[in-house]
Amino acid sequence: MPFELKILGSNSATPVFNRHQSSQLLQIENEYFLIDCGEATQHQLIRFKIKFNKINHIFISHLHGDHVLGLPGLISTMHLNGRQRELHLYGPPGLNEILTLQLKYSETILSYDIHFHELDAKESKTILDLDNLTVQTIPLNHRIDCCGFLFKEKPKKRRINKETLPPETSLLNIIKLKNGEDVYEGEKLVLKNEEMTFPPRKSRSFAYCSDTRYTETILPMIKDIDLLYHESTFLDDMKERAIETFHTTALEAATLAKKANVKRLIIGHFSSRYKELEPLLEEAKTVFTNSSLAIEGNNFSVSDD
Amino acid sequence: MPFELKILGSNSATPVFNRHQSSQLLQIENEYFLIDCGEATQHQLIRFKIKFNKINHIFISHLHGDHVLGLPGLISTMHLNGRQRELHLYGPPGLNEILTLQLKYSETILSYDIHFHELDAKESKTILDLDNLTVQTIPLNHRIDCCGFLFKEKPKKRRINKETLPPETSLLNIIKLKNGEDVYEGEKLVLKNEEMTFPPRKSRSFAYCSDTRYTETILPMIKDIDLLYHESTFLDDMKERAIETFHTTALEAATLAKKANVKRLIIGHFSSRYKELEPLLEEAKTVFTNSSLAIEGNNFSVSDD
Repeated sequence: MPFELKILGSNSATPVFNRHQSSQLLQIENEYFLIDCGEATQHQLIRFKIKFNKINHIFISHLHGDHVLGLPGLISTMHLNGRQRELHLYGPPGLNEILTLQLKYSETILSYDIHFHELDAKESKTILDLDNLTVQTIPLNHRIDCCGFLFKEKPKKRRINKETLPPETSLLNIIKLKNGEDVYEGEKLVLKNEEMTFPPRKSRSFAYCSDTRYTETILPMIKDIDLLYHESTFLDDMKERAIETFHTTALEAATLAKKANVKRLIIGHFSSRYKELEPLLEEAKTVFTNSSLAIEGNNFSVSDD
Repeated sequence: MPFELKILGSNSATPVFNRHQSSQLLQIENEYFLIDCGEATQHQLIRFKIKFNKINHIFISHLHGDHVLGLPGLISTMHLNGRQRELHLYGPPGLNEILTLQLKYSETILSYDIHFHELDAKESKTILDLDNLTVQTIPLNHRIDCCGFLFKEKPKKRRINKETLPPETSLLNIIKLKNGEDVYEGEKLVLKNEEMTFPPRKSRSFAYCSDTRYTETILPMIKDIDLLYHESTFLDDMKERAIETFHTTALEAATLAKKANVKRLIIGHFSSRYKELEPLLEEAKTVFTNSSLAIEGNNFSVSDD
C-alpha cells in the first residue's frame, strides 16, 4: 500500500525561479493529506493531475502567507466543484476567523462542511487518530506559533502464510494468528503462530518540520522515522540570519536527521536568494548522506517491506 | 506615450486549462494600474517580467475570490522586497478588514503604507484624479457589490509647431498657445494659435466591467471609449444561467459595445466550462466586429494619434 509524499512547492517567502511556496501532499494507503497550502497550491494540484476531492484533511503549520494563502482559493474551488464530503482543517488560532471573514464578504455558503481543529503550538498532541495511522503535532520554534506534523502508521497485523495454514481454520483463529497469538485446542497447541504467519508489514512514518529554528526538542518525536522533511532556508554561512529569522540551515537540518537516526531527509523552504539549490544539498550531505532536495513534482515513497 | 492593457488572467471561478483568474495591468504613460488580483497574480507578474514596485494603485472590483485572492500574497511580496513607496488600494468594504486580520495573525508590519480607499458600488464616483487622468467607478449589477473602473486621460494641451514658432517666444506665450489661446501685443495678433500649434494628442479611455449582468445603465459612462473590457462568462445559449449567476453572455457584451459605440471590445472572465474560447469570440463578432479575447499575456494598445 502506498506511503508517498509529493512536493507541490517548497520555496520560502516569495515565488521565484518557477518555485512555488510550501505545500506537500502525503498519500497513506487511500487517504490524501495536504500539508501547508501556499498561494497557487490549487494550480499545482491541477498541474500534477491530483483530484481535489481526494483530500479530506488539510494541515496548516502556521499563518505566514507562504504556507497558507492558497487555502481560500482551494476551499472555494472545492465548493465550485460541488464537493459534498466534509473537510477537516487543522490550523492555528486565527485561521478559522480569517476564512469565515472571507466567506462572509464574498457571501459564500460552502457546499460542504469544514471541521476546524485548532492547533496548540505549545505541546505535542494527537490531532488525528484513524484505524491505520495517527497524526501528532510537533511544536516548533518560529517567530509565530508553528507546528510540525508527525504521520505514523499504527502497528500492523501479522500476515497469514496461506501455504501452511489449514484451509478449515476458523475466522476467529485467523484473527488470533494475525494478532500474534498461538492457537490451542484445550491445552494442545494446534496452530503455531510463527509457522502460520509472516511478520507484519512495516509501519512507516513521516515528519514535516517547517518553519523553525534548529531545535533538538524535536529529536524524541522524529527518532528513527522513515522520512523527515525539514526546512533548510539557508546555507550555514547564513547561520546568524537563520537564527534572526527563526529558520534552519541545511547543515543543521542534516545534523538533526543524523542525531534522530532518520532513514531519509528532504530539505526545502529554500530562500529566494538561492537560484541554484545544489549547494544546499551538498552541504546537507556532508553530514547526512541520504538527503534530497524538495523539488516540486518529485515523489518520495516509503516501502512497507 | 503608452496606453496599454496587459491581460494577466481572465478565467472565471477556477483556474483551469492553464488560464488564470482575473487580473489586468494598465499602463498609462509612466503609471501602472493593477485591476483585480486573482490568486497567483504575483506569479503572472513575475512570468511577464513586470516589476512589482512600478504598481502604485490597485483596484479591486469585488470580493469574490477569483478577483482578490492574489492580493495578500502580492502585498506580502512587495513587503519582502523592501518596498517603501505607499500603495493605494481601492476596494469594497471588507477588504481592508480581511487584510488587516491576515497581517495581524502573521504578525507582519508592512515596510510601506497602504492607503485604503473604500468603494461605494451604488453610484459612480471619481476615485483618483491625477494630472493626466481620472479613474471613476462604474456601478455594476452582480450578486455582491461590484464596481467597474473607467480610466480617462484628461484633455491634452495643443502641441507647439517648432517650425513656425519664433525662437524668441516667451514661456508665458508658449503656455498660452498650448492652452489654445492666440497671443496679442496690445490689440495686435502676433501669434495665431492655429499657425503655431498642432491639435492636442488624443485623450484615451479604457473601461473594465466585471463581474456583472447585462445592464444598459453603464452605457453613458462607456460611450465612445477606446477600449472596453467586458465580462462574457457564457455563450448566449446559457443566457438563463448568466442571469441567475449575475453574469453576461458574449452576445450581450458585444451588444453593449455596439450601443456605446466603443472602438474596441475585449471579452473575458470565461466560464470553466469552455475549453475552447473561439466560439465566444465568434458570437461577439456577429454583433461587434472589433472584438478580441482576453488571452493572458496579450497586450492591447491605444494610440494617441
